[in-house]
Amino acid sequence: MKGHGISMKDRDTLGVLVIGTGKMGADHVRRIEEVTSGARVAAVVDVDRERAESVAAGVDGCTAYTDPVAAMASADVDAVLIASPGAAHEAALLAAFSYDLPVLCEKPLTPDAASALRVLEAELRLGHRRVQVGFMRRYDAEYLKLKSLLDTGRLGRPLMLHNRHRNVASPPWWTSAMHINDSVVHEMDVTRWLLEQEITAVTVLCPSPSGSAPDGLQDPQFVVMETDGGAIVDVEINVNCGFGYQVQAEAVCERGTARIGDGHGMVVNSAGHWGGSIAQDFIERFEDAYDREVQAWVDATRRGEVTGPGVWDGYAVAAVCEAGVRARTEGRRVEVELVERPALYR
Amino acid sequence: MKGHGISMKDRDTLGVLVIGTGKMGADHVRRIEEVTSGARVAAVVDVDRERAESVAAGVDGCTAYTDPVAAMASADVDAVLIASPGAAHEAALLAAFSYDLPVLCEKPLTPDAASALRVLEAELRLGHRRVQVGFMRRYDAEYLKLKSLLDTGRLGRPLMLHNRHRNVASPPWWTSAMHINDSVVHEMDVTRWLLEQEITAVTVLCPSPSGSAPDGLQDPQFVVMETDGGAIVDVEINVNCGFGYQVQAEAVCERGTARIGDGHGMVVNSAGHWGGSIAQDFIERFEDAYDREVQAWVDATRRGEVTGPGVWDGYAVAAVCEAGVRARTEGRRVEVELVERPALYR
Amino acid sequence: MKGHGISMKDRDTLGVLVIGTGKMGADHVRRIEEVTSGARVAAVVDVDRERAESVAAGVDGCTAYTDPVAAMASADVDAVLIASPGAAHEAALLAAFSYDLPVLCEKPLTPDAASALRVLEAELRLGHRRVQVGFMRRYDAEYLKLKSLLDTGRLGRPLMLHNRHRNVASPPWWTSAMHINDSVVHEMDVTRWLLEQEITAVTVLCPSPSGSAPDGLQDPQFVVMETDGGAIVDVEINVNCGFGYQVQAEAVCERGTARIGDGHGMVVNSAGHWGGSIAQDFIERFEDAYDREVQAWVDATRRGEVTGPGVWDGYAVAAVCEAGVRARTEGRRVEVELVERPALYR
Amino acid sequence: MKGHGISMKDRDTLGVLVIGTGKMGADHVRRIEEVTSGARVAAVVDVDRERAESVAAGVDGCTAYTDPVAAMASADVDAVLIASPGAAHEAALLAAFSYDLPVLCEKPLTPDAASALRVLEAELRLGHRRVQVGFMRRYDAEYLKLKSLLDTGRLGRPLMLHNRHRNVASPPWWTSAMHINDSVVHEMDVTRWLLEQEITAVTVLCPSPSGSAPDGLQDPQFVVMETDGGAIVDVEINVNCGFGYQVQAEAVCERGTARIGDGHGMVVNSAGHWGGSIAQDFIERFEDAYDREVQAWVDATRRGEVTGPGVWDGYAVAAVCEAGVRARTEGRRVEVELVERPALYR
Repeated sequence: MKGHGISMKDRDTLGVLVIGTGKMGADHVRRIEEVTSGARVAAVVDVDRERAESVAAGVDGCTAYTDPVAAMASADVDAVLIASPGAAHEAALLAAFSYDLPVLCEKPLTPDAASALRVLEAELRLGHRRVQVGFMRRYDAEYLKLKSLLDTGRLGRPLMLHNRHRNVASPPWWTSAMHINDSVVHEMDVTRWLLEQEITAVTVLCPSPSGSAPDGLQDPQFVVMETDGGAIVDVEINVNCGFGYQVQAEAVCERGTARIGDGHGMVVNSAGHWGGSIAQDFIERFEDAYDREVQAWVDATRRGEVTGPGVWDGYAVAAVCEAGVRARTEGRRVEVELVERPALYR
Repeated sequence: MKGHGISMKDRDTLGVLVIGTGKMGADHVRRIEEVTSGARVAAVVDVDRERAESVAAGVDGCTAYTDPVAAMASADVDAVLIASPGAAHEAALLAAFSYDLPVLCEKPLTPDAASALRVLEAELRLGHRRVQVGFMRRYDAEYLKLKSLLDTGRLGRPLMLHNRHRNVASPPWWTSAMHINDSVVHEMDVTRWLLEQEITAVTVLCPSPSGSAPDGLQDPQFVVMETDGGAIVDVEINVNCGFGYQVQAEAVCERGTARIGDGHGMVVNSAGHWGGSIAQDFIERFEDAYDREVQAWVDATRRGEVTGPGVWDGYAVAAVCEAGVRARTEGRRVEVELVERPALYR
Repeated sequence: MKGHGISMKDRDTLGVLVIGTGKMGADHVRRIEEVTSGARVAAVVDVDRERAESVAAGVDGCTAYTDPVAAMASADVDAVLIASPGAAHEAALLAAFSYDLPVLCEKPLTPDAASALRVLEAELRLGHRRVQVGFMRRYDAEYLKLKSLLDTGRLGRPLMLHNRHRNVASPPWWTSAMHINDSVVHEMDVTRWLLEQEITAVTVLCPSPSGSAPDGLQDPQFVVMETDGGAIVDVEINVNCGFGYQVQAEAVCERGTARIGDGHGMVVNSAGHWGGSIAQDFIERFEDAYDREVQAWVDATRRGEVTGPGVWDGYAVAAVCEAGVRARTEGRRVEVELVERPALYR
Repeated sequence: MKGHGISMKDRDTLGVLVIGTGKMGADHVRRIEEVTSGARVAAVVDVDRERAESVAAGVDGCTAYTDPVAAMASADVDAVLIASPGAAHEAALLAAFSYDLPVLCEKPLTPDAASALRVLEAELRLGHRRVQVGFMRRYDAEYLKLKSLLDTGRLGRPLMLHNRHRNVASPPWWTSAMHINDSVVHEMDVTRWLLEQEITAVTVLCPSPSGSAPDGLQDPQFVVMETDGGAIVDVEINVNCGFGYQVQAEAVCERGTARIGDGHGMVVNSAGHWGGSIAQDFIERFEDAYDREVQAWVDATRRGEVTGPGVWDGYAVAAVCEAGVRARTEGRRVEVELVERPALYR
């Protein structure tokens, strides 16, 4: 056990191992090197050795590996950022636990509830929290404002949460299950975080598919969730809306409502119209949230702490996703089953 | 049979009989006298003779009656506006049919689908359409813009329609069934009109009731409707929202969305906040729609025509309301049953 | 002297003489016949007999004249609406005074301050107010909200008023002086009405002309006015903005600001943009204000009253216009000279 | 001469000397240490030794000085950030030139045009540009969008620029000249940058002072500027508006307008109102711009480059400020005099 996450001096630069150097991983490498204060990329891992070496070559003092465990053993590595495909997360997390390294794990924690539960049990055996899950909306300025307002109680208890989640167009490999697993997964985490309630049931309604969607894809979908606090949450998930990337949320409370995600910024009058442009992808909309998420993780890790969403959140959301996918394919309301919440995560 | 609706000269002033002189009826009397061009209130009816006479006294050449049939027999009466309680509508409609008088009937057409069907059959026997139903949102400038845009097809086929319907506070006599029968009834008509589709099923989800609502009232409610064109429609109905009267709708189409009902008008900066005021009741929000509705009815009637929503619309919405109320009390999705649409209403 | 404006019974229909049957006059004929309650067009006047007769033919009981004085002598005429070119206003007003008829006079009262002063002196000799001037912005719902808010004093004293006044494109006969005389004339009246202060000086700054403007036209212009209450008022007047008709005003007060005229209504998301459409002409923007103005004039006249902007307002604005045109041509600040305000107009 | 700004290896961490550890300087120390990537605070200078030492104590490897020249001589110092009072800037800049160190100098470059011109001549003697001036609005996301749009030429040539600049309340030591020198100075730079034109004349109009302003302070002021490209620029500067910190700009072009600074973000409905909160100070509004400005300076410096606004901009704005202050005190339009622009700054 290295455990240097806890003992490292506050002023030291954090040496980060980035696992996975695809689009997301490479972006995190750039972020840590050029945007984040207090951290550097000490090593990268990719099953594709060439890609790993190419990324490492652009970073001073960065070593390329193909084996995550070998990389974690390096004295340069203080913390791990997992950005590999979801199926590889469980093994990487267990390896990081064996070195007691702090982890920022891109969502999903793992691809299903059973594997997420195994990770949860492994962290319970470790006896302390080491993992932050990459639910970056919790670091978005607008969501943070909404959370702050709800927490004041000024508007009373939240009764409903209306959500819109729209992408310009889906990639060729997108499936109807990914609406839930890759997109609504964010609203599931946001719901649990904003309301501080667990989701208990999911229903999915499907209009006849949009002509803008590829043949055979059930797009859009309308997801309705119920919580153990008695709130109703609806999500329009629409991955071929054609006009932009748009994420909106409105919390309806006992004495008022609060809405985020409206169009804003520069307003142009021209040719008979007023208005503005819409972001075209999630990077434009959430770039600051990613920056803030990684900086918060680096800062907490340098202080020897774990903050942000953890393994319980990853597990609970995985269970809701499973219920959501079943709800759509079986055309009925499906209840969510969770194990009892361990004391470590209360 | 008088039938003078058809034979009257275009330039004559329409003599209107207003049945019911409560809040709504008295407002229609004022509207016809002070706002509407080409019509006058020739007679009023109320079971409360004193109230009828008091209203008639304020209008030149207006006679007070307690019996609708006697009033309809008057030579001064060219057309009938029914603003009595819903339970009295069926009798008044049948009487108007016997005199072949044009009618503007406040919503609901009748309180349930069975009685609405009887009215429909009576109009079928009459052989021509005589009734416009008071679904005044079809005359609201914003809804008309939304309808126009959808009709161009520029955004593609509508896939979803999200609706918000909020009142400051419910009156003491309000019941959980009235959420559907008195409020969502408007969204039901709007859905059918905007999409030109019938509603086929209704589901109602209820969060734990708001602390702002009276004890025992299920408020707010979340209504999800399906249409025979494959669209999904959701309505937040929230009659104790506390902050204002607000009606919003967003149509989600294949290539874009269109939203009406956002706050607008004068924007004030003061004391740390920017924003504007919210209408406090439906009259402030829809006054122009009522004015336009009555003027359109007067103009059409003077031309010997019937335009606007008719008996079929009143019947279809009554059937959806019944399904909605059952859906809430039985906690399940309920399908809507309609008779075949007669040729007269195609 | 007929003087029936004062003695007529409140419930009688007002017989209106419309002088001028060009675009504006014909629109007022339509408005009185189809929109306004309590009035009818009894007669029309135009120097073009054919045009007068063609308009009269479309209205029941309406007589066509070419001579305004002959028309005013008709027993059917209770009130006069002047919609002829500005140069013909003085004669029509003096004739109406000789019959003591109530008048709604389209702006400008007269084309210059000297002639406006003659009209003022004539009304003083008449001894009571008979004229409402057609500054219809005072009847616009948004301006009325702004006025109401300022009158509460909640935001403190107004310090500045920023105005935008934009037209899509100027007609071929438009001149650089018309920016002041035909467009900013509205902001001059609005300033005096909103602030209840007189304008004391005008400065006009001109950017190098827009390439969208016809050769030789000084467009846009930037007008800065000072008031006797110490406020500063600026107006962007831009008659070839290319994108729409837009009128905005922001009052800057001691404890806040209030802004009207922002784009609003239906918001559409499509093809990378959010926003809405902009009105293309003043009729779309101010149609309701015209309707309300004429209805208010009819209602007041039937009660034997004169309300709304009067001859003093027409005169004061004419004097400010003259100063504005001089300020631009002479490239300097020009002070406004007014006679003392007679008691009749206090 | 050290000149290591140019020769330093790209991956080295930049050692920054921060001169001045007051509110602004201390904030820059925090920014460099906690937010900026690729730089560290190597030394701080303050005439108040205790304050310098207290700031240095919180930063690893940071030395406190009272003498800027001694600090610049340190081998740890690669670049200088000047955040001392304006009167001390000239000496610090000349010292930095003698060591050929890259400089980020908070605005104003110097307190007047004469001293700014001396700095300009000194940099000319040095023979290459070393100074970036702290006009941080050029790094604000909204201003950058506006600049990008104008640069496309899609809306045509800019004709006018309307600006609002509002502070909640002025501090006790604020003077009527500071409206120009400390506040409008930003709009002067923004105007020159957005339009790529020099300002040629300034006029200042003053309403009677707001009751919210301290006695004797001329607040608000209305500044009108003309440019050598024929544009008209107006600025409302209002330092006791009472409700928030607000910066807005609208560019009026030949074929459209573009506006930034509108209220946006979370929209709340409660208690009869819709709207959002307004930032209370410039840090909340422009924090990201400061972060981006310092990061851009660090990145450019590490590459051996100078980007961003330079000494010519500092000098030109100082000359416009002088004209503005004279325009207000003398109550007249004042022309701006500039020396010919040296080739180094073209």
